[in-house]
Amino acid sequence: MSKDKQFVTEITPQSEDFSRWYIDVIKKAELMDYSPVRGCIVFRPDGYELWELCQRELDAKFKETGHRNAYFPLLIPESFFQKEKEHVEGFNPELPFVTEAGGELLEEKLAIRPTSETMFGHMYSKWIQSYRDLPLLINQWANVIRWEKRTLPFMRTSEFLWQEGHTAHETEEEARQETMQMLEIYREFVENFLAIPVITGQKTPSEKFAGAMDTFSIEAMMKDGRAVQAGTSHYLGTNFAKAFDIKFLDRENTQQFVHTTSWGVSTRLIGALIMVHGDDRGLALPPKVAPTQVIMIPIGPPKTRDAVIGRTDELFKELKKAGVRVKVDDRADQSPGWKFNEYEMRGVPVRLELGPRDMENGVCVLVSRVSGEKRVVSQDNLVTEVNQMLQEIHDQMFENAKQFRDDNFLSVDTLDELKADMEVKRGFYLAGWCGSNACEHTVKEETGATSRNIPFEPKQTKSNCLVCGEDAQHTVVFARAY
Amino acid sequence: MSKDKQFVTEITPQSEDFSRWYIDVIKKAELMDYSPVRGCIVFRPDGYELWELCQRELDAKFKETGHRNAYFPLLIPESFFQKEKEHVEGFNPELPFVTEAGGELLEEKLAIRPTSETMFGHMYSKWIQSYRDLPLLINQWANVIRWEKRTLPFMRTSEFLWQEGHTAHETEEEARQETMQMLEIYREFVENFLAIPVITGQKTPSEKFAGAMDTFSIEAMMKDGRAVQAGTSHYLGTNFAKAFDIKFLDRENTQQFVHTTSWGVSTRLIGALIMVHGDDRGLALPPKVAPTQVIMIPIGPPKTRDAVIGRTDELFKELKKAGVRVKVDDRADQSPGWKFNEYEMRGVPVRLELGPRDMENGVCVLVSRVSGEKRVVSQDNLVTEVNQMLQEIHDQMFENAKQFRDDNFLSVDTLDELKADMEVKRGFYLAGWCGSNACEHTVKEETGATSRNIPFEPKQTKSNCLVCGEDAQHTVVFARAY
Repeated sequence: MSKDKQFVTEITPQSEDFSRWYIDVIKKAELMDYSPVRGCIVFRPDGYELWELCQRELDAKFKETGHRNAYFPLLIPESFFQKEKEHVEGFNPELPFVTEAGGELLEEKLAIRPTSETMFGHMYSKWIQSYRDLPLLINQWANVIRWEKRTLPFMRTSEFLWQEGHTAHETEEEARQETMQMLEIYREFVENFLAIPVITGQKTPSEKFAGAMDTFSIEAMMKDGRAVQAGTSHYLGTNFAKAFDIKFLDRENTQQFVHTTSWGVSTRLIGALIMVHGDDRGLALPPKVAPTQVIMIPIGPPKTRDAVIGRTDELFKELKKAGVRVKVDDRADQSPGWKFNEYEMRGVPVRLELGPRDMENGVCVLVSRVSGEKRVVSQDNLVTEVNQMLQEIHDQMFENAKQFRDDNFLSVDTLDELKADMEVKRGFYLAGWCGSNACEHTVKEETGATSRNIPFEPKQTKSNCLVCGEDAQHTVVFARAY
Repeated sequence: MSKDKQFVTEITPQSEDFSRWYIDVIKKAELMDYSPVRGCIVFRPDGYELWELCQRELDAKFKETGHRNAYFPLLIPESFFQKEKEHVEGFNPELPFVTEAGGELLEEKLAIRPTSETMFGHMYSKWIQSYRDLPLLINQWANVIRWEKRTLPFMRTSEFLWQEGHTAHETEEEARQETMQMLEIYREFVENFLAIPVITGQKTPSEKFAGAMDTFSIEAMMKDGRAVQAGTSHYLGTNFAKAFDIKFLDRENTQQFVHTTSWGVSTRLIGALIMVHGDDRGLALPPKVAPTQVIMIPIGPPKTRDAVIGRTDELFKELKKAGVRVKVDDRADQSPGWKFNEYEMRGVPVRLELGPRDMENGVCVLVSRVSGEKRVVSQDNLVTEVNQMLQEIHDQMFENAKQFRDDNFLSVDTLDELKADMEVKRGFYLAGWCGSNACEHTVKEETGATSRNIPFEPKQTKSNCLVCGEDAQHTVVFARAY
């Protein structure tokens, strides 16, 4: 943050142009930069640290539930993608191929992994012989590439970072339990760590993962009303087991196919947390994932400066010792006003101001990035007060996001109703669906909205398909999505 | 560890065939598996966890010294490699190229990064304008590919995991300070965390990094006397700054080129720690990096089993709470003898045995993987005793490795002496060198030994070049290397 900004760039208001607002914010806050490779960004330190903090939290949860990390090759032989029929149809168009290496043409083209089911399948087939080898619970943190036509920083990049879990089980029941367990870990993480409310449900057949039996997702609404798929968990049945011959001798000494799952979240979550919580002043980072949770800004005239900075430093050490991610900006060459704007723009949840009058009174001022509230607190009780405000900010962010989502979540009975509303805005639409690909496709063709999922706990149960009017088999959420 | 091993595989003794010993051990201990992609391995959980523990320790040190993590693209445009002359000569032969993606031929071939100086150079050129933007201290944890002709698991794989730091500075002095600081961080880590003694020094011109002004390395000796380059730190001068136009306005308002550094360690360290500490019983993992530091094995007849297991569990919780990485193996279907062998093979530093007699006496037995010592300790003082033994094991491992290294580190005066010794063994050879590429090349041609580095603190200073007899400009370590 030591760079001279000769040209102050304003942030486009969200209401004026949400897409431009997003790019303005992520550039201004130095979260990323474009790279010379099509569709690939550079995750700058402030952007990458968001991912690091997500990783740390999620990795602990994976380990707690018995998973271990491993690392499988980046490159996957082209032939592997032919082995599972739906999988190849789904991913083939997006594969980048390495065709030459070490100065020579390769005998077989090697794809860069878009996801690693095939490589895991190949290795699991070697490692699994008996029920004693199950369950096999492995995760990897890695980069993958999907050569996208249209990209958007964090939200959809050709190369992105993620985690992909791949598990193998004795029974369908156990595999389904794992599928749902990981989905719940995702839901809990996205809601309680990132303060983003989600709708949990099952993907429709046309939207499920290429090669899965069932796909489940958590769907979030951005500030422009569009949807983001924040995480997915797949029950793969015996599809990949059959494709890669992953068998085991069961407890009755019979050869069986394993039942597998896979599940993943990616750096798209960074885009989501920006679009859910950010505002016209810039980023607003949920406290649990904010690299800096508290920025301390000593203020006042030169004559009290040393004393104020001295006390600031003491309080800084106290907060740091208590585990708060805290920084001090005591630079003399920037005004307090400039600093206030800067850290609001960078989304720091709490600003702590300390001036000579505060010193006299043994207090300091905490300012919330979300509400703007200025709270005078005793220096003696600082750690407690700061943690309290951080928790309140998290809760407020979640509530604000939930309120916005609920305000823009309409129940519709017909396609015309949906279209009419989409003339003027974006949002989530709860509707009945007969279950046919045709009607689902009609919605997409005519509105651009896709089915997001079939919620486990819909607000209402709808009776009739919004397109054809027949009895509804499912109540579905439709939305334009990122 | 729940797999039935129908076929017990013996470990080839080191003295019989060291290469086969190595492969036997890493396979038996399930650290890795071969993959269907040439030169690329799968890091299985027990192998990958070694890397995770290294990462955690190193990452903390990088953060402490002001570095931040970021993430740059995997793919680098072919043209970037043309910009720094030595760099292209060094890396071009090993590049894998992506030539098609999304079903189409690419306009420009994209290389998979072998190292990221060029991409960092390109972006730094955009981000750096003023001395206020310096120093720029960024690191990334990533995968890289170097299409190798001959590979060896962990030691030299086509794809490997590493960290690469790239920094830019105002002055040569500061950049050189950074270069040496990171080298010292590596030395301290490899010696004090991995218990591997190293020789710290400067690479000769012919051995330095392609594009560097000066390269510094830490060199370790494996149990077969061969050398491994355990880490490198490069002072790059203004080479990449000029190649990528990385300029800044200095404090006198003059445009200057930045001075850059880069430094890295990789998953080769896993191979090194196996080859330095392992023995004919299998792995021997240094305590600070061992995923499991203590394995608790309750023993005794069925009638006391429950009581023993109960007490084992209590002690397990105590150790766990104290931060020890501890596990219990109380499976009834494997004998204690089988378990003793198993965990020795897997390199667990301390085995804790608890039986009915120990229960009566309020003690348990700690067994060292390194010395085999069986130490009876009081259960009341267990955490202290365990930590004590772990520290002793670390110290013993380091001392053993250092003794072995010193015993196999000869001072030679002539090439003939070196050749004579290399008829019967491998080791490190301290020799004088005139400084000419020709003499250095002669040593390599005639013995296969390369110069490892010019030690900062050689045991002796040699007077004459071992090849030509002229005055020695440097005292050099030569060795056959991995």
